Amino acid sequence: MAPILLNCLGNDRKEYLEETFHVNNPNLDGMEEDILYHFSLGTKTHNLPEMFGDIKFVCVGGSAKRMKAFAQFIHTELNLPGSNDEPKDICEATDRYCMYKVGPVLSMSHGMGVPSISIMLHELIKLLHHAHCRDVVLFRLGTSGGVGLAPGTVVVSEKALDYNFLPQFEQVVLGKVIMRSTELDAGVSRELLQCSKELPNLPAVIGNTMCTNDFYEGQGRLDGALCSFSHAEKLEYLQRAYEAGVRNIEMESTVFAAMCRVCGLKAAVVCVTLLNRFDGDQITSPEDVLVEYQQRPQVLVAHYIKKRLALIALTPP
Amino acid sequence: MAPILLNCLGNDRKEYLEETFHVNNPNLDGMEEDILYHFSLGTKTHNLPEMFGDIKFVCVGGSAKRMKAFAQFIHTELNLPGSNDEPKDICEATDRYCMYKVGPVLSMSHGMGVPSISIMLHELIKLLHHAHCRDVVLFRLGTSGGVGLAPGTVVVSEKALDYNFLPQFEQVVLGKVIMRSTELDAGVSRELLQCSKELPNLPAVIGNTMCTNDFYEGQGRLDGALCSFSHAEKLEYLQRAYEAGVRNIEMESTVFAAMCRVCGLKAAVVCVTLLNRFDGDQITSPEDVLVEYQQRPQVLVAHYIKKRLALIALTPP
Repeated sequence: MAPILLNCLGNDRKEYLEETFHVNNPNLDGMEEDILYHFSLGTKTHNLPEMFGDIKFVCVGGSAKRMKAFAQFIHTELNLPGSNDEPKDICEATDRYCMYKVGPVLSMSHGMGVPSISIMLHELIKLLHHAHCRDVVLFRLGTSGGVGLAPGTVVVSEKALDYNFLPQFEQVVLGKVIMRSTELDAGVSRELLQCSKELPNLPAVIGNTMCTNDFYEGQGRLDGALCSFSHAEKLEYLQRAYEAGVRNIEMESTVFAAMCRVCGLKAAVVCVTLLNRFDGDQITSPEDVLVEYQQRPQVLVAHYIKKRLALIALTPP
Repeated sequence: MAPILLNCLGNDRKEYLEETFHVNNPNLDGMEEDILYHFSLGTKTHNLPEMFGDIKFVCVGGSAKRMKAFAQFIHTELNLPGSNDEPKDICEATDRYCMYKVGPVLSMSHGMGVPSISIMLHELIKLLHHAHCRDVVLFRLGTSGGVGLAPGTVVVSEKALDYNFLPQFEQVVLGKVIMRSTELDAGVSRELLQCSKELPNLPAVIGNTMCTNDFYEGQGRLDGALCSFSHAEKLEYLQRAYEAGVRNIEMESTVFAAMCRVCGLKAAVVCVTLLNRFDGDQITSPEDVLVEYQQRPQVLVAHYIKKRLALIALTPP
């Protein structure tokens, strides 16, 4: 198998791309058309540079409703003109994902689990490439189960860990397993933690995030359709996770970290904890409490974006 | 770790459950309330036996729009009273999945990938358990990439295979990997193949289905954001898959087969192929052709359901 090519593009755009990010696929630029099938977009049918060229921040999350709410929220936060009552879903021709563009911010849903976000990331990274975007930061805004934290705490991920508490993602390529690192951008994480201190009612920590391939057995829940372990065995596993620095558990962070890293994209994972898994498995908080919790990653990332945009505005060209 | 308990329920329902299916979790019946979080349903807030007790067929598929269309289609096919213009989404309080009940048929979406369908299956199997359903057959109706088949061919899966072409599903339980068999119900598959012969314009085969955790590198596509292999290496991998009996590739079948099997639920996977992967990677057929292809698994399973219901009606109680 050929080694992964770190720069696979023509010389004319080489300098620009080395400054920003790169798709790692030498085939793409030779394709007459690239259909981003799960977005219902394509390089022949859509003017991607015109539609997306000014994007600086991409915020992704599992739920379509939540990412629509984030599009409306960031529209207000950035004081953009026009109404944000009914933002247009750019991917409305498909129901796989939803996508909203609000000034320099793209808000997208990715569904649940590594495979679902992986499809989205492939097509998103190709979209950013085709649109000639540069200096883009990606955020995953999610919900998670907390490990030894009070519900409502926001975890900014230092590393995404697999079920063995290792910072790696197993990718199968033509039947062979390769490993990719899942370290996230330390600078963005530190800035996010600083932002949390500038906001009221936003308890946040930096910690490791464990990513699993299911919600029940893989996370040690006792309440799935299948359960073959005891309460004591569950607690012992969570304790080992805690000792490895795990502060929350979700289902997308490893592939998000790995793919962004391979492509040279700065990325952060910001998830609120809905419960403390040492205390239980079911999510029983009242709806209004859960809604407020789910807004916390949005409020935090919006604050970061506003600070960065102010900095960009102050920097001479 | 305790062995998986095959019968974990009180003696009073033992005989009934041995005839039908079983959740494999001794904790469930001791819970005061079971919140099916991703469905927005619960045992205290909803009368599950009344809502779902008569279900005999569960049809699941990735796309919410497609499963709504199936609900409308099966309503017409079964000659049920009332309008099918706007079926009620039972899970409308959440955007994780959609769910429609049409007489004895439940039509549900599961999103993309093993983790997404795995969450849905845990909560669906618990729902069927709480609702005291019996003699239920599950179908996954999907789309897939074909391996050596003309686009539009429907594949009824004999076995779901992993990326090594083995009929097994790797489940992580508290950090340990366990293997589950992914064989599907041979009787249901044979009946489905017979049904296909009774329908016009429904080319179908029985074959193995490979399940991967992503759409691009894991399936040997050359058009993702990342690609480190050549066209020849891709073809060599697809050829090996073909020789292992693989006729299509999708992203949910292994966990669907494994969980249904462990719980004693009859299950079938019925996916149409949208392209022949030996010929390319991108899905380029016109929209109307793709729409007609996607209806084929629905038409086939509807025919099976109608035949079974006629049989049930003919059988003395």
